[in-house]
Amino acid sequence: MSNPVTEQTGTDTAGTDTAGTAAAAAGAEKTGNEAYGKKPFKRSKSHFADRITADGRDGWPVEAGRYRLVVSRACPWASRAVISRRLLGLEDALSLAVTDPIQDDRSWRFTLDPDDRDPVLGIRFLSEAYDARETGYPGGVSVPAVVDVPSGRLVTNDFQQITLDLATEWRALHRSGAPDLYPEPLRDEIDEVMDGIYRDVNNGVYRSGFATTQAGYEEACLALFRRLEEVSQRLANRRYLVGDTITEADIRLFTTLVRFDVVYHGHFKCNRWKLAEDPVLWAYSRDLFQTPGFGDTVDFDHVKRHYYQVHTGINPTGIVALGPDLSAWLTPHHREQLGGRPFGDGTPPGPVAAGEEVPAAGRP
Amino acid sequence: MSNPVTEQTGTDTAGTDTAGTAAAAAGAEKTGNEAYGKKPFKRSKSHFADRITADGRDGWPVEAGRYRLVVSRACPWASRAVISRRLLGLEDALSLAVTDPIQDDRSWRFTLDPDDRDPVLGIRFLSEAYDARETGYPGGVSVPAVVDVPSGRLVTNDFQQITLDLATEWRALHRSGAPDLYPEPLRDEIDEVMDGIYRDVNNGVYRSGFATTQAGYEEACLALFRRLEEVSQRLANRRYLVGDTITEADIRLFTTLVRFDVVYHGHFKCNRWKLAEDPVLWAYSRDLFQTPGFGDTVDFDHVKRHYYQVHTGINPTGIVALGPDLSAWLTPHHREQLGGRPFGDGTPPGPVAAGEEVPAAGRP
Repeated sequence: MSNPVTEQTGTDTAGTDTAGTAAAAAGAEKTGNEAYGKKPFKRSKSHFADRITADGRDGWPVEAGRYRLVVSRACPWASRAVISRRLLGLEDALSLAVTDPIQDDRSWRFTLDPDDRDPVLGIRFLSEAYDARETGYPGGVSVPAVVDVPSGRLVTNDFQQITLDLATEWRALHRSGAPDLYPEPLRDEIDEVMDGIYRDVNNGVYRSGFATTQAGYEEACLALFRRLEEVSQRLANRRYLVGDTITEADIRLFTTLVRFDVVYHGHFKCNRWKLAEDPVLWAYSRDLFQTPGFGDTVDFDHVKRHYYQVHTGINPTGIVALGPDLSAWLTPHHREQLGGRPFGDGTPPGPVAAGEEVPAAGRP
Repeated sequence: MSNPVTEQTGTDTAGTDTAGTAAAAAGAEKTGNEAYGKKPFKRSKSHFADRITADGRDGWPVEAGRYRLVVSRACPWASRAVISRRLLGLEDALSLAVTDPIQDDRSWRFTLDPDDRDPVLGIRFLSEAYDARETGYPGGVSVPAVVDVPSGRLVTNDFQQITLDLATEWRALHRSGAPDLYPEPLRDEIDEVMDGIYRDVNNGVYRSGFATTQAGYEEACLALFRRLEEVSQRLANRRYLVGDTITEADIRLFTTLVRFDVVYHGHFKCNRWKLAEDPVLWAYSRDLFQTPGFGDTVDFDHVKRHYYQVHTGINPTGIVALGPDLSAWLTPHHREQLGGRPFGDGTPPGPVAAGEEVPAAGRP
């Protein structure tokens, strides 16, 4: 859930955005992106936490064709939803809008579309859907966002809940052969694993990269690598994080790991070692990358340009690093030797939907 | 040869410093260090190119105890001289002053010494020796610098020549068993190899890190890795760059490679791969690191703090990255299997002189 200033929407820390998000959203503080690294980093709660459910108890029933998922392929939080949607075969039921990886002072924008306008919602900025939901909303504009197409109103930007609901509430619209990404008997274990990974890894890389003090950076960076070492040990003899199939926990770890060497290692100073130097995590990441529904959603070009060009507070030149060599993502991983059934009793998803392919510039 | 603003003194590009060095040296531009990444990077000629020779033709004869070598252990150019002095056993003949790795607006300073004053020269800033040589000198203050102790005047800051003269003009004062670092029959080949390495590697990392445009960065970064790949091929089946012994060319390559993963990979965006990912160059670097006279001169703490804290124009937070893990520098390299005679007909240098040991914080 990347917002225009701090990517701060989240669930670990109560409170509001802390780096001028509101002002930036209103266009009052044009140096919003420069705030990175200058103000303490806190990820705040998602403001719009309505849920789209099978029974429609929040007023938003699951319905094919009614909602639009708005993402940035740069954003690890939004990318979870892109992967879940692919694995579950929800492409026809829930349409996809991909924003420009570079926000401006009005935040996420549809400048990749003809006339710089989302063809379904008819808006130029995601903030217009936020405004339609709540006039004068003072918080940040974040992805992933689910928008109600008929009314143009934002339904939810609750990135921690969106994918769980896709996995459980949207079952009636899943493809035949869709995996169970959040199986009932394993939920306690999945939740526990995801909790530590969220704090130290998913959010930890941001706490490292946007730290404003040496002590704050070191605390975050050390906790990150301690957790990665623990996860690496866990994955040494098992193919997936929980059970013997892909679950929500793997999706959440993957979206951070796939960005690790590309942006977190250098740009966020998470540099004790590269992912490619840990044989277990590197093979695990390649295994998922090469699994239909994972790597085919990743746009490395969007990832790199977003991080290096938007965070001018920590990269004033805006220069995008050339490395690392991405071709290694396609090398054999040999993780199938550990067994496991990637999709459980289900099947892999089919090809990427027409029009949703990642451009060549973003692929290894 | 690191100066207070741009580390620009050098030999490849004629002209003056380009990022406010003069003003910063005079205290007029207090944001000098912030200029990194904001102005085009050009390494300019060393201004003081007198030579200390056996015959004293420039007025500076080789003489035991007369001169003082001023260095920063952070600086790759100065570190060449520290290594040469060790290998040649010139410790007693040429004394050593080590500056604080963090310059202030008056540049290199002796804040590591009692009363913040060099105990031999009696000065607080290296710039005082420059002033003693030329009143109102408008250029940058750079290391390595050789100062005439009796007069307190700078003799030379010509980093390209200083080590060649230590190897050839100072022979009468070399230790017994000193290697020939610049052997007559190999000079053409050494010069040619060093020339490409200087342009694309030694200076290339700076051109990459201080680039102000995407195109300028990419040109420098691509040339750097092309040259590294060529050098890696050259070293695959031979232990040293030229001949079968250590020469000046190895010293010059080493001082860049030893900094590569620590600062150039992330801070300077030289991130196509880490040194540790190239088996040949990584083993070559460890071989030299573990050779007496090389690794025992390296202070990783000085290196990291200098680059990350001084270049606020490209690292505004001044936060020093924790990684990478340095313990691997001490692992076996197996390069002795390639043969070679590290010191030719000579012998390795003895232990580091008392008082010149690198503190524990700077060692792997």
